[in-house]
Amino acid sequence: MIRIAIDAMGGDFGPEPIVAGVVEALKDTNFSAVLVGDSNAIKPLIPTHLLKNITFVKANEVVSMSDGATDALKRKDSTIYKSIELLRNKEVDAVVSAGHSGATMSLATLRVGRLKNVARPAIATLMPNSKDTTTLVLDVGANVDCKSEHLFQFAVMGEVYSKQILNRETPRVGLLSNGEEASKGNEVSKEAFSLISRLDSFVGNVEGNQVFDGSVDVVVCDGFIGNILLKTSEGVADAIGKIIKKQITKSPLAIAGSVLMKKVFKKLKKQVSYDEYGGAPLIGVNGCVIISHGKSNAKAIKNAVFQAINFANSDINKTIEEELSNFVR
Amino acid sequence: MIRIAIDAMGGDFGPEPIVAGVVEALKDTNFSAVLVGDSNAIKPLIPTHLLKNITFVKANEVVSMSDGATDALKRKDSTIYKSIELLRNKEVDAVVSAGHSGATMSLATLRVGRLKNVARPAIATLMPNSKDTTTLVLDVGANVDCKSEHLFQFAVMGEVYSKQILNRETPRVGLLSNGEEASKGNEVSKEAFSLISRLDSFVGNVEGNQVFDGSVDVVVCDGFIGNILLKTSEGVADAIGKIIKKQITKSPLAIAGSVLMKKVFKKLKKQVSYDEYGGAPLIGVNGCVIISHGKSNAKAIKNAVFQAINFANSDINKTIEEELSNFVR
Repeated sequence: MIRIAIDAMGGDFGPEPIVAGVVEALKDTNFSAVLVGDSNAIKPLIPTHLLKNITFVKANEVVSMSDGATDALKRKDSTIYKSIELLRNKEVDAVVSAGHSGATMSLATLRVGRLKNVARPAIATLMPNSKDTTTLVLDVGANVDCKSEHLFQFAVMGEVYSKQILNRETPRVGLLSNGEEASKGNEVSKEAFSLISRLDSFVGNVEGNQVFDGSVDVVVCDGFIGNILLKTSEGVADAIGKIIKKQITKSPLAIAGSVLMKKVFKKLKKQVSYDEYGGAPLIGVNGCVIISHGKSNAKAIKNAVFQAINFANSDINKTIEEELSNFVR
Repeated sequence: MIRIAIDAMGGDFGPEPIVAGVVEALKDTNFSAVLVGDSNAIKPLIPTHLLKNITFVKANEVVSMSDGATDALKRKDSTIYKSIELLRNKEVDAVVSAGHSGATMSLATLRVGRLKNVARPAIATLMPNSKDTTTLVLDVGANVDCKSEHLFQFAVMGEVYSKQILNRETPRVGLLSNGEEASKGNEVSKEAFSLISRLDSFVGNVEGNQVFDGSVDVVVCDGFIGNILLKTSEGVADAIGKIIKKQITKSPLAIAGSVLMKKVFKKLKKQVSYDEYGGAPLIGVNGCVIISHGKSNAKAIKNAVFQAINFANSDINKTIEEELSNFVR
């Protein structure tokens, strides 16, 4: 049975939504949950009949959002540190954390280690698109300064993830750039273009809008740009929502219209909500680590746990190592 | 009277929308229009009573979107080349072009020249936000690889433009980054942070969503990222529109609702449409050049002409030179 360690305290809202998400997941699937944190606070949140699927590991500290990621290595009694140690010691198959993402990433990279031929693990995230599917974008925050070979590795990792976890038989991999033409790009992305061209899955440069039109399965960029892309898309969706709301309240007719359209807006919200996608896998470490949003609700955690189960059940890490070994000079 | 050269042939849809935009502008404001292109094609599009405000300059070629920007220098009989030459020779006060933006930028930079202490002119664009104002973003495509001092110059140029053209008394200037904290950023942006900190208007790092929430007036980034930001926001808006449409057609109630909300959607479309904002000023060249979208309609061109008039009537170029001279070592 797959064993998953969950940092029960790291999220912005304390243990409640995290534990509730794990409970929801346990109702749907069989796995062994290891909850890391203050068991006195956690245990009362769990229905008695589910306790048999859960073990508890005590950790007395939480790395807070204001802490530096590098301090995390010293915080050996923190929920993240202990969760990652369980993975390192092979006591669990995967970790899910909604805590400090930088700390999770550093600890996973340094304590669990990287896959062979992977210089930099990347955080990958699923973005909704207008074709009712999703686009995998990586990196979205782990690596702010990237070299072309890092972007190449992200392309391979994204391709394999897309195949094995998202079941895309022949994923189309694009490199984020300022134009579709091969001549477009900055210094690093132009170099990366020629490296990634060695992959059959590579469809060339893609522009920002192609993340949302379903024309590619994987979009590769550095973590600085990936973070900006993520926040920009949140910002646009939010602004559109606000403008619509403001306009609606100005007219009784529009209010009536919005009531009739309630289901449409609900469906839209569902489609663009990160809850549906769970967490973001950290790809490239020698294990399975799912990084969830600090503001995750129970549904997001439940989906993150499902993601962890799929990841841990797959051969993705082995395949990434094999694929990359074909390109080692 | 302000004299404006308009590249009448460079847009994706030929001379019709461009000339129609100039005609609309002439109905509202007094200026002298110089239409550059094939006068046989252009003249029939102009009502006789407006001909007195228009002169024609013959140019037999159009730089096409597939041409390289660097070839533009040799295409001396092109509409863009001739428009820029008019500015260089001070026969006009401003140029508006919906043609090849790279060519326009190279020609303006090389033939008209840069302002003193400006290493790289930048293309600035106005983005709508949820506070019903606009956010100025620069650079959005002119410079894909930037050093920190270029970003600093963009900050000064954006600040001055925001003050003088957008009438923001105390503009708030932000540096686009992967987090608000001063410690966030990539190598170049961290260096730029400390340079831009010398400006009183600097509010620190901003994230992608802040472009759309009205919390800053100016957002500084390199042209690679600026282009991605622009295309990403177009892509998100487009995807949301498509998802809503798809959902609406699934239910008669929702169709009725959407009819009642028609005005709201129209208002939204107007608010997020680039037509309203005209073109993007190329800031940092020793003159006034407005770069319009290749797909500009008459309204976009009309607004670009108004922008050119405001720019040419301002002291912005002189002020930028003065401000930058305070920081020259």
